[in-house]
Amino acid sequence: MNTIEMNGMGDTICAVSTPQGRGGIAVIRVSGPETLDIVQRCWQGKPLNDMATHTVHLGNVVDNNGDVLDQAVLTIYRAPNSFTGEDVVELSCHGSTWIQQQVTHALIDAGCRHALAGEFTRRAFANGRMDLSQAEAVADVIEAQSRAAHQVAMSQMRGRYSDELRGLRDKLLRFVSLIELELDFSEEDVTFADRGEVTALAHEIQALISRLADSYRDGNAIRNGLPVAIVGQTNAGKSTLLNALLRDDRALVSDVHGTTRDTIEDTVIMGGTLYRFIDTAGIRQSTDTVEQMGIKRTWQAMDKAKVVLWVVDVTSADTSMAHDILSHCNGKALIAVLNKTDLDDDLAARSELNDVLPEGIPVVAISAKRDSDIEALRDLIVTTASLPDVEADTVIVTNARHYEALTRAGEALTRAIDGLDNGLSGDLLGQDIRECLHWLGSITGEITTDNILGEIFSHFCIGK
Amino acid sequence: MNTIEMNGMGDTICAVSTPQGRGGIAVIRVSGPETLDIVQRCWQGKPLNDMATHTVHLGNVVDNNGDVLDQAVLTIYRAPNSFTGEDVVELSCHGSTWIQQQVTHALIDAGCRHALAGEFTRRAFANGRMDLSQAEAVADVIEAQSRAAHQVAMSQMRGRYSDELRGLRDKLLRFVSLIELELDFSEEDVTFADRGEVTALAHEIQALISRLADSYRDGNAIRNGLPVAIVGQTNAGKSTLLNALLRDDRALVSDVHGTTRDTIEDTVIMGGTLYRFIDTAGIRQSTDTVEQMGIKRTWQAMDKAKVVLWVVDVTSADTSMAHDILSHCNGKALIAVLNKTDLDDDLAARSELNDVLPEGIPVVAISAKRDSDIEALRDLIVTTASLPDVEADTVIVTNARHYEALTRAGEALTRAIDGLDNGLSGDLLGQDIRECLHWLGSITGEITTDNILGEIFSHFCIGK
Repeated sequence: MNTIEMNGMGDTICAVSTPQGRGGIAVIRVSGPETLDIVQRCWQGKPLNDMATHTVHLGNVVDNNGDVLDQAVLTIYRAPNSFTGEDVVELSCHGSTWIQQQVTHALIDAGCRHALAGEFTRRAFANGRMDLSQAEAVADVIEAQSRAAHQVAMSQMRGRYSDELRGLRDKLLRFVSLIELELDFSEEDVTFADRGEVTALAHEIQALISRLADSYRDGNAIRNGLPVAIVGQTNAGKSTLLNALLRDDRALVSDVHGTTRDTIEDTVIMGGTLYRFIDTAGIRQSTDTVEQMGIKRTWQAMDKAKVVLWVVDVTSADTSMAHDILSHCNGKALIAVLNKTDLDDDLAARSELNDVLPEGIPVVAISAKRDSDIEALRDLIVTTASLPDVEADTVIVTNARHYEALTRAGEALTRAIDGLDNGLSGDLLGQDIRECLHWLGSITGEITTDNILGEIFSHFCIGK
Repeated sequence: MNTIEMNGMGDTICAVSTPQGRGGIAVIRVSGPETLDIVQRCWQGKPLNDMATHTVHLGNVVDNNGDVLDQAVLTIYRAPNSFTGEDVVELSCHGSTWIQQQVTHALIDAGCRHALAGEFTRRAFANGRMDLSQAEAVADVIEAQSRAAHQVAMSQMRGRYSDELRGLRDKLLRFVSLIELELDFSEEDVTFADRGEVTALAHEIQALISRLADSYRDGNAIRNGLPVAIVGQTNAGKSTLLNALLRDDRALVSDVHGTTRDTIEDTVIMGGTLYRFIDTAGIRQSTDTVEQMGIKRTWQAMDKAKVVLWVVDVTSADTSMAHDILSHCNGKALIAVLNKTDLDDDLAARSELNDVLPEGIPVVAISAKRDSDIEALRDLIVTTASLPDVEADTVIVTNARHYEALTRAGEALTRAIDGLDNGLSGDLLGQDIRECLHWLGSITGEITTDNILGEIFSHFCIGK
């Protein structure tokens, strides 16, 4: 973290908040104690001091020579009723890149500093407009690529997750008060607190923390895409299958700018959730070092996947890999895909597969080339992935930092419960519970450091 | 033009107005008679009917199931005090591509039609908020890549050009009234109008129209970049020179998104104006058909250029091309560039060049490879191009359609002046003057057709 991040809260900051590039309009946002004075220096029109909060005004943006840069609409938000809690002005300009640059430069000439990534949201957090988990959700909302990811992020941004954490905190504080009551009277050797009630409360809290921490498994998949590995022997038709799976949604996916692509991985939205398909190198017995490395990467891809599609060429029906694949599928959903039904549709191979697969592994026959039964496979993948239905108020943990904090909170609470069972004294129990509170507080930002904040907001985009 | 464009004025339209892609915020604009009703169906918050014009409000955008899509800021502009002159609402949402799509879909579900390219500006024109030349300038403002192009477009958008045209029109109407005065009394064989005054007025108008039409030469260069051809024999160092000229500004150029590039053409901003450098194939005597085609393209590039850089290798000092180059440089500014001074700096070649070049052609010695004296060459190019200084209120014609209309208007006026000189009767003169008025009116859109409007606005971006 640099000194600006440490000390810059008194600065007035500006940045283009709309997407990069040229468009009809672009919005440049200014926030900070000097907002009104600085923008006034770049403004021809009604004086800012005469403007009521939450009003818009047409005028000209001028540079520091008084030359008109653009005709613009100015929106004013007076502190504390703004996104950041400070005085905020948004200038809606014509969306040429030249104007965006020049207006930003004019504001900097007039006294602004260019905003760092996420600095507006960081100020919103610092000024108590939202807690840290809500601030983090702002970035998640902007990055959401699917309905499910968006719903979870929106729920978090609107404070549903904070509410749950506050509920947990209240329960923990009651727990502490019960324990401390005992502590106060411990010298008199009187146990006021009913250990039964205390234990029940501790277990209730533990269950809530566990539920949240466990939801990260799905939450991570919802936010970043559920990984599906496509494995099988060389020439089984894995890449053709990947293309068939992607085809229908290709247009939709390419609508989403910034989607990362490489030759072996691509994403598709199915049933409102993002799936991340990983095409792997074909597997065959080999002493070739390079090929062995490719196969090693295949096993690594399988390790990261939640769903594995094992593609088998129906004409060869070679099931010799069954053992290797099953041994790498521990805890994952496996689907066996009999491909190339266009070449051989009597499906004798299905019975061979059934012989080597344990009960309950679904087998689906398709032709990736002819695009037949791909829809059935998609449905099967969605069913097999069994992600929870996400509604507008669903609370699911999607953030690795929160997952770690919840895990640590759970561990501290487990120690407290063990202590309770072993008749440990209240002051020792109190330490563990305070640690539990500390970890929960780190999620909402009640307890945090500049280093953590710097790390969190550096992942935001500029202008937010 | 399709039927939507012809008949769609009663529709309420919506589109994302900010640049494509993901950012902190994105603005979705709605305009039309049903704006308030339609947006109300997608809005949770203060009812739109209770909102004063030019105010902003925090609330939720919901889809037609009532599910919250985003927390957003709504800005309301009540007719006629809006960009389009209609009721307008702008929804400032989180800038994820997913949200932009969903909010647009929700508005369409609620009754909007997706806006065509430039349709908001077309409505502003149709509703008398701006004339056609101002509307066209909106697109130019958005596309401006340099200070000069921006200033000219801004001046046009703010109506300076329209003012000049209005002045012309008033003079023409006075001209007509003088002529018609004569017409009314012609049967009485009385010439009331002072032919001397009428002739002087006609010449004054002609001079004004010519000045505007002539400004297109510079205006086109300012708007689209002034073309500079780099020609010379193979291996004279033309491509190295192009790279040297581009190098300093490369970062600045790459800041401007959407700049078109190919292997032989690139743009640089020098002195606030865009220059478009065209590297050409080397010229040498050749019977090879392919090479001859390359050389033909070189002459074509020279024909389009305003400035020609003839690059001569100082070590060979081969001036045999002088005749060919000079014969293609009619009306262009030629600069002779002695390259490779790093290899031979005694510059004996300069005198050889002076022998073959006419008086007044500047010769500059450089080393493109060592980047020496490139700055002097840049200055020389800017001086030689001699584009006018552009201020905030400079009127220069940048639009081919306007240039054509001005040329036609000038031709009609010339016919009227000839008629005047030849003692033609007032009613015959009147026809030419009305044609002149027609062409001037076509620029500001007083006289226009749906076809022309369709063509003009189809070049706009969506959302503007």
